[in-house]
Amino acid sequence: MATVDRWLLPDGIEEVLPPEAGRIETARRRVLDLFQCWGYELVITPHVEFLESLLTGAGQDLDLKTFKVIDPLSGRQMGLRADITPQVARVDAHTLRREGPSRLCYAGSVLHAKPQALATSRSPIQLGAELYGDSSTSSDIEVISLMLETLSLADVPNVHMDLGHVGIYRGLACAAGLSGDAEQRLFDALQRKAMDEIAQLTTDVEPVLAGMLRALARLCGGRETLDAAREALAGAPAPVLEALQGLTQIADCLAERYPDLPLYFDLGELRGYHYHTGVVFAVFVPGVGQSIAQGGRYDDIGADFGRARPATGFSTDLKTLVSLGNAELAAPLTGIWAPHDADPALWQAICQLRGQGERVVQALEGQACESALSAGCDRQLVLKEDTWMVAPLAS
Amino acid sequence: MATVDRWLLPDGIEEVLPPEAGRIETARRRVLDLFQCWGYELVITPHVEFLESLLTGAGQDLDLKTFKVIDPLSGRQMGLRADITPQVARVDAHTLRREGPSRLCYAGSVLHAKPQALATSRSPIQLGAELYGDSSTSSDIEVISLMLETLSLADVPNVHMDLGHVGIYRGLACAAGLSGDAEQRLFDALQRKAMDEIAQLTTDVEPVLAGMLRALARLCGGRETLDAAREALAGAPAPVLEALQGLTQIADCLAERYPDLPLYFDLGELRGYHYHTGVVFAVFVPGVGQSIAQGGRYDDIGADFGRARPATGFSTDLKTLVSLGNAELAAPLTGIWAPHDADPALWQAICQLRGQGERVVQALEGQACESALSAGCDRQLVLKEDTWMVAPLAS
Repeated sequence: MATVDRWLLPDGIEEVLPPEAGRIETARRRVLDLFQCWGYELVITPHVEFLESLLTGAGQDLDLKTFKVIDPLSGRQMGLRADITPQVARVDAHTLRREGPSRLCYAGSVLHAKPQALATSRSPIQLGAELYGDSSTSSDIEVISLMLETLSLADVPNVHMDLGHVGIYRGLACAAGLSGDAEQRLFDALQRKAMDEIAQLTTDVEPVLAGMLRALARLCGGRETLDAAREALAGAPAPVLEALQGLTQIADCLAERYPDLPLYFDLGELRGYHYHTGVVFAVFVPGVGQSIAQGGRYDDIGADFGRARPATGFSTDLKTLVSLGNAELAAPLTGIWAPHDADPALWQAICQLRGQGERVVQALEGQACESALSAGCDRQLVLKEDTWMVAPLAS
Repeated sequence: MATVDRWLLPDGIEEVLPPEAGRIETARRRVLDLFQCWGYELVITPHVEFLESLLTGAGQDLDLKTFKVIDPLSGRQMGLRADITPQVARVDAHTLRREGPSRLCYAGSVLHAKPQALATSRSPIQLGAELYGDSSTSSDIEVISLMLETLSLADVPNVHMDLGHVGIYRGLACAAGLSGDAEQRLFDALQRKAMDEIAQLTTDVEPVLAGMLRALARLCGGRETLDAAREALAGAPAPVLEALQGLTQIADCLAERYPDLPLYFDLGELRGYHYHTGVVFAVFVPGVGQSIAQGGRYDDIGADFGRARPATGFSTDLKTLVSLGNAELAAPLTGIWAPHDADPALWQAICQLRGQGERVVQALEGQACESALSAGCDRQLVLKEDTWMVAPLAS
């Protein structure tokens, strides 16, 4: 293999160079500080786990995205985390085991064996926050608000949000006696808004419920969608009406808090259907095909971890936030250039300046003063009357 | 499998819970800020790469520690990084391609298929700094000093440092005409200080050189070791004497900068021999069998990456620094408890306080005021004369 090929990185796997890496570090700190301000506590989950615990409750999508390796110590199969959310749910249910609500957050790299979509990264830096132990819409509103604040911190312009609720379809399908394959086929048809298929797959369903299931594919659009849904689903089973009411509560509160945020509703599109149990949401920006931040309620995962806990949360990708956002993340680079000199007094002066938070770069043998500029220095240390002093670079 | 077994983590793979995760985050920021103060620029290298680029120039030890997976996109073998240093060397030589010295640093998780030693972590958070483009001892002194400052920042007590130089053994072995298997066998015997074996393996070597090679096993101890070495190696080939002189220069400067740091020398122990080309160093603390920070010069790796560049650097593990260090890393937790209330004015008050950097935790339905204490709050928001005000928690 030619030398040049040997150093190419795999598709979708990136390295980040200076100064971009510094900007990502700054954004990371700001977001974690924001999470802290909202009462979310940091957890650090492992990059590999036994496959069973990594995939429990997470569904087939995650399985296909997960790299697998054999653990030489135990002989068991391990997976590289492709999503941190299920790990944090395990920490809440199995390790922390707290009573009452628990707020956790995280930031870390994940790896995808297959990219989410063509040309998307396979190595995002996933950031997110999760709220456990409360099943009310207050929790959903809190995590959605925190997600919007995170995007605002990064100054990502022109965001809009899609909202849905998997309880609506699930409740109708359950009342219609659909399960297993039949439920899955109808679900797939709904995602594609394939009206003919939907009609065909509901021919055996009780006519009122069939009408409601067919209506889901058309129930998408602005705020008026919720009114249309209340009409189309009047008389639906109680869980369906409760889901619709919960979605309306969330929408109303968000509209009040973020009056400039465009909200769209789609009662037939059910991202993360196998994983989520309640409201689902995703933020988009023009020109980017994939959502840039997303989340939802996933109460059922708690049971898989031996302790049923309500759960809601969101996640996003730090690299995406930095590349799409307009936030000023690079502090102006300043520094003091120190000459190449073994004088112990120079070393003392350098230590003192660094102790004060100054950036001091010491010349190596043969480095001329021009190097000071390329090293981002604006001042220099010079010896004046036996004392090392900071002076302008020009002098 | 029983539920409890399913959630056990693999041996040597840890998760970090609050508040420990917060302490690790604080230490990480402080160390990266320190690196920044010394002029080191952050790079973020990928968690997986093609195996060839990951292992180039790094030797067999790293190969055995590296998890391998097949990339489903390219069909090529990839490795999970077990060490970040070779990645940064590739970035310097192949991606950045700067003229003149370059200072780079990093912080990130690595994974080891096999633990370094019994009961050591297989998922350290590796921190390190590398200086490229300068072959003088000034660079070695700089990175060793930065390593010591890093340990001092974490307030790790009772550290001592071992110093060696692979150029001494390598120069003697080369002059003695030893290479391949013979050099490796003698190297192994030296590591074990197996005097009989060393004598036997050098019987065919020219007597003066054989005497020097045998002397290496005994050349270990305090500062007097360097004087003894000058005597025992008088008349050695020039590269050997240069190596000894370089080591002495480094030791003298460190003794001056850090007069309280115990320094030990071992001219026969050659950690990272296949990788390093000059000075090698490692820091130990009582009661921990493995070094807690280590590094050395590795000029030859540059050539493997298509561009020979002098290189020297060090690395350590963030989790080890936090667990061994006495630094105060937890800021006193304060916070304001907000009641469960949908009043838009309350939301405005919360936003304003968070914007000022305050930590505000909002109650969820049914949460009593006792929860405020367990959420780390010391104040609360109360409604007084139609205005939300911060008040003591007791009132």
